[in-house]
Amino acid sequence: MIKHALSVTREQDFAAWYQSVIAEADLAEESGVRGCMVIRPWGYGIWERIQRLLDDRIKATGHENCYFPLFIPLSYFEKEAEHVDGFAKEMAVVTHHRLIQKDGRLVPDPEAKLEEPLVVRPTSETVIGAAFSRWVQSWRDLPVLINQWANVVRWEMRTRMFLRTTEFLWQEGHTAHASEAEAREETLKMLEVYREFAETCLAMPVVAGEKPENERFPGAVATYSIEAMMQDGKALQAGTSHFLGTTFSSAQDIKFQNANGELELAQTTSWGVSTRMIGGVIMVHGDDDGLRVPPRIAPWQIVIVPMLRDNDEDAALIDYCKALQADLAKLSALGEPVRALLDLKPAKAATKRWGWVKKGAPIVVEVGGRDMAGGNVSVIRRDRLYREDGKLDSAVVAKGDFAGGAAAMLEEIQAALHDQARARLDANIRRDVMDFAALEAAFAGEKPGWVEVNWSKPAAADLDKVAERLKALKLTFRNVPEGAAPAEGACIFTGAPAVERILVARAY
Amino acid sequence: MIKHALSVTREQDFAAWYQSVIAEADLAEESGVRGCMVIRPWGYGIWERIQRLLDDRIKATGHENCYFPLFIPLSYFEKEAEHVDGFAKEMAVVTHHRLIQKDGRLVPDPEAKLEEPLVVRPTSETVIGAAFSRWVQSWRDLPVLINQWANVVRWEMRTRMFLRTTEFLWQEGHTAHASEAEAREETLKMLEVYREFAETCLAMPVVAGEKPENERFPGAVATYSIEAMMQDGKALQAGTSHFLGTTFSSAQDIKFQNANGELELAQTTSWGVSTRMIGGVIMVHGDDDGLRVPPRIAPWQIVIVPMLRDNDEDAALIDYCKALQADLAKLSALGEPVRALLDLKPAKAATKRWGWVKKGAPIVVEVGGRDMAGGNVSVIRRDRLYREDGKLDSAVVAKGDFAGGAAAMLEEIQAALHDQARARLDANIRRDVMDFAALEAAFAGEKPGWVEVNWSKPAAADLDKVAERLKALKLTFRNVPEGAAPAEGACIFTGAPAVERILVARAY
Repeated sequence: MIKHALSVTREQDFAAWYQSVIAEADLAEESGVRGCMVIRPWGYGIWERIQRLLDDRIKATGHENCYFPLFIPLSYFEKEAEHVDGFAKEMAVVTHHRLIQKDGRLVPDPEAKLEEPLVVRPTSETVIGAAFSRWVQSWRDLPVLINQWANVVRWEMRTRMFLRTTEFLWQEGHTAHASEAEAREETLKMLEVYREFAETCLAMPVVAGEKPENERFPGAVATYSIEAMMQDGKALQAGTSHFLGTTFSSAQDIKFQNANGELELAQTTSWGVSTRMIGGVIMVHGDDDGLRVPPRIAPWQIVIVPMLRDNDEDAALIDYCKALQADLAKLSALGEPVRALLDLKPAKAATKRWGWVKKGAPIVVEVGGRDMAGGNVSVIRRDRLYREDGKLDSAVVAKGDFAGGAAAMLEEIQAALHDQARARLDANIRRDVMDFAALEAAFAGEKPGWVEVNWSKPAAADLDKVAERLKALKLTFRNVPEGAAPAEGACIFTGAPAVERILVARAY
Repeated sequence: MIKHALSVTREQDFAAWYQSVIAEADLAEESGVRGCMVIRPWGYGIWERIQRLLDDRIKATGHENCYFPLFIPLSYFEKEAEHVDGFAKEMAVVTHHRLIQKDGRLVPDPEAKLEEPLVVRPTSETVIGAAFSRWVQSWRDLPVLINQWANVVRWEMRTRMFLRTTEFLWQEGHTAHASEAEAREETLKMLEVYREFAETCLAMPVVAGEKPENERFPGAVATYSIEAMMQDGKALQAGTSHFLGTTFSSAQDIKFQNANGELELAQTTSWGVSTRMIGGVIMVHGDDDGLRVPPRIAPWQIVIVPMLRDNDEDAALIDYCKALQADLAKLSALGEPVRALLDLKPAKAATKRWGWVKKGAPIVVEVGGRDMAGGNVSVIRRDRLYREDGKLDSAVVAKGDFAGGAAAMLEEIQAALHDQARARLDANIRRDVMDFAALEAAFAGEKPGWVEVNWSKPAAADLDKVAERLKALKLTFRNVPEGAAPAEGACIFTGAPAVERILVARAY
């Protein structure tokens, strides 16, 4: 039996396994500040890769980055009732701007109470809408296509690292358009950017589609999401794109003169993904030895570990490894220069090996004196860690051969991780559930996956009733998949004629 | 007489000119949130370039990026008295985590008052120190070399865009070391990184040196700065590096077992630069036509403006410009691919030309029908905007010749901006002031520049007295320049024997 690197396996306790990967891969840790985490270098390095690759796509589709204030005056929220209802329960509020000493303790200075409290942004539609109203006068000023990378705060009662934290990092795109058609096109364009990004860069296939009314962003006319399947069968909403219609343009007075000289309200959109994606990467690609990072988002794709012995041979061994690192740095894989690290930290080689396995570096190259003598290196591929006999699969290959094939190997690993996740997603969506009892039965077992059913798209109170029934089973609607088969027969919830097919799942 | 693009010149009113550049170059604007600005795409694009180039240097010197919480519990600050004294007067305090409706208004919910108020980070020594105390156990864990890019908040009473805003963006490096010597070396290494970065990338020569005791960061044993000279002769502190000794390691309990098995306190450092640097770039390189952005940090280095006429020739003109853009994109200048934009926005060509002049794009290329017919382009260099006769210097050159020389032209512009700033700095530091009356006289005129004087380095109350005398003249100590001549004679403040030379200036 394989002795894995983690003390808890996915089978034993998925939630504990998740926490264990985060700790053992040095991704993040509790900060001592309620609900806020410290993102450690390996976790933050993955976020930097995500930022770089997604930012390229956001810019390639014509958007520019800006930066808007962290603080939003309460009065901005009061302008849009539905929006504030959706967020008021979970906002951090700044009420004072100075501290004083009192009885030996620091306390907010009563003399420095703000006249109007400030909210720490949970999202920026209101403050960006106010800017849009200044920027947009004429149809010539449209579209406005902007994005920001920022931290936001939502006061969550139950937090879980990366998935739901009080503070998190994200990007939020905000656009304004002259017509509804153009704004709807933008909403779907960015949904597709997210889908392609998740699939290509995170090796995480997703289902893109429209959320039902009860799952819409507060203030949105339509909300779309990408949903990824975790290894426990649950869904993770990994990105959303909203068509906001004129909700915010009427609240914030974003008006323009059209070509006929008439005043119109602009049509706006917003869309975002966050550090939550890293939680998705962990639960899609992690295994019982830790994380497996897809090469495109790995801060280091190849880690070279020299087996140093604190003796005279070390210098030659380090030179040998440096030469390999230099050869690798000349390569290009997946459209970018290869990122290879030489790990010279003072620790035992075996400790370092397992450290990098747990972190999920795609390729770990160990080099000992015997390897060097033979002109070789020992190569561990993170996507194929063990041989059939359960032993660690460390292959001795000629150094030149390894360097010559390293780029292709990284591309293979990226594809392999994607294909495994794709197969899992495809195998775990049931489409044969034709009534509510069957739905209940489908979710009675372990790791139930997702179920796609026919429904009649009830609205308002009728929809709430259906959502309540699902909630009793700890289920939610995920989305109406793009490209799903046409609905047929009766809605499994209402019995009325079905109009589309919708995904039901347990979710994070 | 030249009719400049801005309505106010540097000579007329430097402060109004500064605001005018920010507005006319679309760098930033007031947000409606007290003391917070909106950084617009051109301003944020400059910040992204600064981030990219500085981040490369921070990583090349062995540091890794992380992310720490925005919120810091009050109790963390209480551990370090000097530090909290330095910041308590200007901190935003979160006291509630929910809003409710009351009399039709949103108010903080009294039921959701935090037991311990949270401070919005003004800087992160305390929360990062707490993490270091978890991370550091043995000498093998040292050094810890980390950095974060983040927003911070200091509740400033008088704000000025980029220079002093309630919220600003920065990077803060934090390191822990086993020995004082190594921590001091790190402090100076990062000071040098900042000096070289300012000089090379911002084309902004600076004076690096140690701050006197009264200008130290709260809690630091030694503070170093880089100081840049603005065109009005004032100094701008553009970056700081602090040796913190054991101030924070004793407050936060950052201890390690040394090689002999004994427990020691770690020695820490911190260092940062912020969006303030953009204010420096404006005041060093701006002129009466707006900003001039050094090519290394220009979001777009070359902007191509086709002179469209809404007729049949437009398509051919756009193709001609696209071909040029493609040729330019193949070039490398200043070590990176050239960044060339084709501006197809619906506006008059002259409006676009002056827009890009005001924004400070290094090269603006206009292409009209006549240019195209002759195989030419019309080139405007932002560093040489006018001919001797006062007319705009737009040079008609063969398209191929322009593309062939564009990389060299960008390098020339980078060097020219640097050399102008260097000459100004060198010409405006007086070193012949030998007594206080002469100092007073030196600062009596307009645009007085800086004065470097002999001083005896008084401490504590004696230093405060000197600082008070300077303050009455609106002067401050800047730093003791690295590589200054040896002190000689008497201190101009105390009459005691001088021990070093120090810079005195008006400052932002």
